[in-house]
Amino acid sequence: MQTWKTYQENNKQRFLDELMALLRVPSISSDSTHQADMLTCAEAVRKSLLDAGATRAEIFPTAGHPVVFAEKILDESKPTILVYGHYDVQPVDPLELWHTPPFEPTIKNGMIFARGSADDKGQFFMHVKALEIMNQTGTLACNIKFIIEGEEEIGSPNLGDFVSSHKELLKADVILISDTSMISLETPSIEIGVRGLAYIQVEVTGPNRDLHSGVYGGAVANPVTMLARMIASCHDENNHITIPGFYDDVLESSPEDRKKMAAAPFDEKEYMRDLGVTSLWGEKSYSTNERTGIRPTLELNGIWGGFQGEGSKTVLPSKASAKISARLVPNQSSGKITHLLLEYFRKIAPPGVTVHAFELHGGEPYMTPLDSLAYIAAEKAIEASFGKKPVPQRGGGSIPICSLLEKELGIKIVFMGFGLDSDNLHSPNEKYNIENFYKGIETIPYFHKFFTEVSQKKV
Amino acid sequence: MQTWKTYQENNKQRFLDELMALLRVPSISSDSTHQADMLTCAEAVRKSLLDAGATRAEIFPTAGHPVVFAEKILDESKPTILVYGHYDVQPVDPLELWHTPPFEPTIKNGMIFARGSADDKGQFFMHVKALEIMNQTGTLACNIKFIIEGEEEIGSPNLGDFVSSHKELLKADVILISDTSMISLETPSIEIGVRGLAYIQVEVTGPNRDLHSGVYGGAVANPVTMLARMIASCHDENNHITIPGFYDDVLESSPEDRKKMAAAPFDEKEYMRDLGVTSLWGEKSYSTNERTGIRPTLELNGIWGGFQGEGSKTVLPSKASAKISARLVPNQSSGKITHLLLEYFRKIAPPGVTVHAFELHGGEPYMTPLDSLAYIAAEKAIEASFGKKPVPQRGGGSIPICSLLEKELGIKIVFMGFGLDSDNLHSPNEKYNIENFYKGIETIPYFHKFFTEVSQKKV
Repeated sequence: MQTWKTYQENNKQRFLDELMALLRVPSISSDSTHQADMLTCAEAVRKSLLDAGATRAEIFPTAGHPVVFAEKILDESKPTILVYGHYDVQPVDPLELWHTPPFEPTIKNGMIFARGSADDKGQFFMHVKALEIMNQTGTLACNIKFIIEGEEEIGSPNLGDFVSSHKELLKADVILISDTSMISLETPSIEIGVRGLAYIQVEVTGPNRDLHSGVYGGAVANPVTMLARMIASCHDENNHITIPGFYDDVLESSPEDRKKMAAAPFDEKEYMRDLGVTSLWGEKSYSTNERTGIRPTLELNGIWGGFQGEGSKTVLPSKASAKISARLVPNQSSGKITHLLLEYFRKIAPPGVTVHAFELHGGEPYMTPLDSLAYIAAEKAIEASFGKKPVPQRGGGSIPICSLLEKELGIKIVFMGFGLDSDNLHSPNEKYNIENFYKGIETIPYFHKFFTEVSQKKV
Repeated sequence: MQTWKTYQENNKQRFLDELMALLRVPSISSDSTHQADMLTCAEAVRKSLLDAGATRAEIFPTAGHPVVFAEKILDESKPTILVYGHYDVQPVDPLELWHTPPFEPTIKNGMIFARGSADDKGQFFMHVKALEIMNQTGTLACNIKFIIEGEEEIGSPNLGDFVSSHKELLKADVILISDTSMISLETPSIEIGVRGLAYIQVEVTGPNRDLHSGVYGGAVANPVTMLARMIASCHDENNHITIPGFYDDVLESSPEDRKKMAAAPFDEKEYMRDLGVTSLWGEKSYSTNERTGIRPTLELNGIWGGFQGEGSKTVLPSKASAKISARLVPNQSSGKITHLLLEYFRKIAPPGVTVHAFELHGGEPYMTPLDSLAYIAAEKAIEASFGKKPVPQRGGGSIPICSLLEKELGIKIVFMGFGLDSDNLHSPNEKYNIENFYKGIETIPYFHKFFTEVSQKKV
């Protein structure tokens, strides 16, 4: 341990500088104008892995953005840890709300502000630097592989194909992902589940052109009003989702599990203060942590239609659109829920408008069993570096590829995330605390050590 | 009459060319980047009036866009007709739906396509050309004044001040406005009423920043969902507006009046075909023409919030906004309804979000009495030029300044509009039929003639 710590201490500034360089590449996967940036970013990731000590590092093209693969095989008889991460980032709008440019990483009060700082460049890069440390200090305990993709933020449409056609290449004993958060450095936690996702777009068309709202108003169905009614119909008065069959496959948590979860520290007042709201919202009979952890949800991600400019324009719009996504929990299926959502919006379309509803992306929910070697090793690693046992937590976010990775590779996944809920993921002013970055790098070699130990003990 | 007709015949092409030149000025009053265009347009209007024979033509500055005033006083003992029009136009977005550029007037199939072609440049310019004709042929029957403003499309915020401080200048016996439509050249009609307007904006704010919809979704009120619920609550299952007090002052039409209105030619199938809808919509127990004529309405003019770009972004938006306007009928008051709307949205704001609602613009409804000299003269003028009596009709649009003009100047208003409902007012591909333009110019001198006759008979 001493050697890791000393090596990191001596190279701290360089580690940070290297991350900053990676954050400067605007690798927005959903925006086709950033195609070249995606390639630049993939190459930078590949090079960083080679520099860190990978004996092989390659860019694999896909039908979309490429995948970076790397490995260092120490000894075929040792276990292999497969690190998954993603080098693509979310779009940046609304740009005007950023205090510093999203692709000019800026350090303020011990935090790096940049798009992708926490999600996920700052987090997967901890594993790159941990490899360098273990490699340089001769402490690598087992084999390590990396799969860093470029399409996580758009639902990993091509990773499935890559994984199923490279099963041998990706053969490993556990998948380790740092793309989630913990409660705090004082109360470390491990996310034992991520929610699934079903993301659709709904387009409502009324008249074939924008109309004068005086001449036609009152006589023609207004697509904005119709869309608003459809959206309003999705929840009942208890904020329960009304879409038929939506809850059918939800695995209800036991009273014991709910009790355990309720024991995790949570300051509701601080939570509200941080968000600037005076009251919280959600499904009746569930706590805030349950609402974002064990319960599925339906959120409006965006809406638009008609005149949005300065002043007033008396128009009855031809069209209104919305982006709508559900977060799913075990054992809901993304495909089934997507189908239910699309059918629902198609079916409730009122006369006078037509509804075009289509899927944008999806992903399955995933849970790490508490008795898996993966979880046990992660728990030990965090205890070793933080000095206290982590709290298991259900997370609200989604990593769409998890269930596919497990299915194709037949191994468990563990989420060892070092972000915080306050990192502004997907929002303006995304940040990652430098202390969390260093603490993550310090913790990862412990995971390698303990996973190797528990695996070999089992054998 | 013969001399008017001959003069117009000989100058037809020039009249059209002059209108095209006026249509090239992008005088969008709501967009502050077009400030210079507004001045250019006002000056062009002033010059056209001088050229047409006005003995005085001046630009009066206001706190906003200037007003153009002109007059030709023939004989103080004769009646005076005050022509009101507006040189400002609606914004052009969505620009991509225009088949030809909005400020490059294009003639196709006998129609001029350009923003402002019907609303209102093409219409007030008929009066400028009618003045030229009457002036050149020595047939001017009475005095004429013009007030052409630059803020009609934004609710005439500064015209009231101008009018009340220039009552002597504007002294007249009737106000003549061509800013409405008729059924068709085959079935000429006169709008005997315009609806009032109460236009507001509603902004719903939830969390102080855009949030990750996975991390926070389900636990925080989503401003888009909340706004949709509020909008959905504005109409009941019969599409009756639910806002308390909304209908209190509505002057119900008598069964006889409704019967007369129902006799006007209306082809519902053709109406639907033109709009591309398979069914119509509206308040139960009223016909389409009643819904747009004698009934008040509430329309969504625009909505926006969250992610509206390509692909998917899993964001829980901080804010959602909507533009909402009501069309009003006698005896509703714009101020009262605006107040009711603002109060309604403020009151129904659910916990977890804050609502900021404010007025954008408004205007009172107006009706021309069928027994007024103004209406009688307009009816005779149309009968003389079209060969048949016009049908009185209640129009759906609004000319916010009407009730103020009547109140301040103490005279009646008559709407002699030559547009068609299919002119795409406020929409992409606004157009004005050239035949209607010429027919309007031909009809206006008749109005001058008959109004002078009926006024003098009365005296």
